[in-house]
Amino acid sequence: MTATFLDRLARTRAQMASVGIDVVLLSVGLDMPWLVGYHAMPLERLTMLVVPREGDVTLVIPRLEAPRVIEMPEVFGLRPWNETDDPVAVTADLVRAHGARTVAVGDQMWSRFLVDLLPLLPGIDWRRAVDVLGPLRMRKDAAEIAALRAAGAAVDRIAGELQAGRIPLVGRTEAEVSADLSARILAEGHDVVNFAIVAAGENAASPHHHPGSRVIRRDEIVLCDFGGTMAGYCSDITRCVFTGEIPSDVAAAYAVLKEAQAASVASATIGASCESIDAAARDIIAAAGYGEYFVHRTGHGIGMDAHEDPYIVSGNTLALADGHAFSIEPGIYLPGQWGMRLEDIVVATVDGPDPMNRVEHSLVRVDA
Amino acid sequence: MTATFLDRLARTRAQMASVGIDVVLLSVGLDMPWLVGYHAMPLERLTMLVVPREGDVTLVIPRLEAPRVIEMPEVFGLRPWNETDDPVAVTADLVRAHGARTVAVGDQMWSRFLVDLLPLLPGIDWRRAVDVLGPLRMRKDAAEIAALRAAGAAVDRIAGELQAGRIPLVGRTEAEVSADLSARILAEGHDVVNFAIVAAGENAASPHHHPGSRVIRRDEIVLCDFGGTMAGYCSDITRCVFTGEIPSDVAAAYAVLKEAQAASVASATIGASCESIDAAARDIIAAAGYGEYFVHRTGHGIGMDAHEDPYIVSGNTLALADGHAFSIEPGIYLPGQWGMRLEDIVVATVDGPDPMNRVEHSLVRVDA
Repeated sequence: MTATFLDRLARTRAQMASVGIDVVLLSVGLDMPWLVGYHAMPLERLTMLVVPREGDVTLVIPRLEAPRVIEMPEVFGLRPWNETDDPVAVTADLVRAHGARTVAVGDQMWSRFLVDLLPLLPGIDWRRAVDVLGPLRMRKDAAEIAALRAAGAAVDRIAGELQAGRIPLVGRTEAEVSADLSARILAEGHDVVNFAIVAAGENAASPHHHPGSRVIRRDEIVLCDFGGTMAGYCSDITRCVFTGEIPSDVAAAYAVLKEAQAASVASATIGASCESIDAAARDIIAAAGYGEYFVHRTGHGIGMDAHEDPYIVSGNTLALADGHAFSIEPGIYLPGQWGMRLEDIVVATVDGPDPMNRVEHSLVRVDA
Repeated sequence: MTATFLDRLARTRAQMASVGIDVVLLSVGLDMPWLVGYHAMPLERLTMLVVPREGDVTLVIPRLEAPRVIEMPEVFGLRPWNETDDPVAVTADLVRAHGARTVAVGDQMWSRFLVDLLPLLPGIDWRRAVDVLGPLRMRKDAAEIAALRAAGAAVDRIAGELQAGRIPLVGRTEAEVSADLSARILAEGHDVVNFAIVAAGENAASPHHHPGSRVIRRDEIVLCDFGGTMAGYCSDITRCVFTGEIPSDVAAAYAVLKEAQAASVASATIGASCESIDAAARDIIAAAGYGEYFVHRTGHGIGMDAHEDPYIVSGNTLALADGHAFSIEPGIYLPGQWGMRLEDIVVATVDGPDPMNRVEHSLVRVDA
């Protein structure tokens, strides 16, 4: 793995030069694991990777967590700190030693550390590390795509069980079905469940509904949007099922949704802009008269993070490149009545869009 | 609940006046749920509570997440934003409208939002919201102590099973036992597992060991440090067991550890400084010759966060007050040989230290 990390470090430094960043500071979040294979613990004890454009990379780490690190001296050195040391001052000293004027910080670094760094490093131009690492992490290599495919296949099997009526729905609460999905996500080999949204009937009109005590009934739509992290890479899928005869208005709307999602997937070819992929779905939904009920962007990038670049949203003119991975998940939400969403993960490749999810896309009637 | 939140808001504003903060900005982390009952989703879509010292409190929130909010118009108003809006600019406008010069941000707010705010709000004195909310959240009320007690009793029952030999150890991997503990934490009513450290033999010498493929053997120490969140409040307990006859060197060290932990608990009376509680344990361990092997602070505050103020560490002169809740968890770690830690959660009260964990404190021999 050292070769992989050395290659990533070299590309990170080239990108730093390209966008004019002197030092990158990474803490919690997945930039650090991508770059050196170590996950900072999300605690008040600071772990910080200091990456200068030239010179040694240093991992500032609580001494009691240093034994967790898999060391790679060719890639980075350790600077353990003791319980009564000030790790923010240690970090500031390293930044100063590199003569930095522009410093980029990881997106998910806790603000407390940045607030403490500000007065220690006056005059610094603060930037976001996503400007450096976003474009690199966005392009998945073959091993990363294989990991996304395995995670996608795992949740496809769960969606297949749902569509086959082998996951009980009617009479259970949304929360119970969510717990059931979560257990299946783990049983399928994921290390962690990221979310398991279960929204019945009118609750499905809230895109990020929190599954609760609402009991699922006959003759309603049940939206399930679930995913986790498996071997470091994320799954994310949405399928809806109907617990009875599908009414004509729901069937009509779903036909539009399915057509829109398929068109958006088909449009995800190399060179197409992210906003054009959003428009491919949105135009079809709007033309059918549901435009005002599609209240969110069409998708988000995915990889080690459940949401990362590129975002499939109006205004994003980024052109798709080989290895970009993202969700395509249009939805239609009628407040107080029902909601529906259909989501696959897709990778842009030289051979065209490559979906990581291939389980049935129809609104399936289930007797469960 | 509205009365609780109004009271907390009033105390927050009094504290803002006291420490000279004009606006508090809260996003992910548990300050926002403590103050208004809503948890921001940890996503790139910004949720931000804007709390001015005077005037209306505003929750800036993605429109598609607004249905998740339990509204309390007496406490805060909603400012939903659409997918193509810029929520950072919305936040900056609100800060400006309040004429703020000192702005405190939540400790765990993602740095990306602070980096984006910096150029929009030049001249602001940036501070940490913990200066405002830390002292308030530190003092637990009766309902909060009841929640900590219930969570503590739940993990005590699991520790009791461990000590009774009803959790198989020998022949299983650390990771398997960790998964077993995690399942029990959930079965005991926790909503989420925060950690389940299982460290056998020499691995126990790494205080934050990540449970792995190491198989637990006969005649070694097994350190278990586990906890979760139950009804919004955290549990956290450490007990060690020994899978065989306890060697005299281990027994001698454990006797010192147990004495030190008990002395530290007994010292946790109102008015005592946090560092004196640390010293109460450390002095005993040092006097017995193990000082260099006790490599971390004695404890951390606990509540909605697994780690929060007050920290029981050298240099912290804060005097304990009624309702302060924290861990007392000294340890002794001999690299390459073994490690041991003993941890209870304790609440400082007018009647003296009130432990939330009361399960057996000895190093129990188990045949499991």
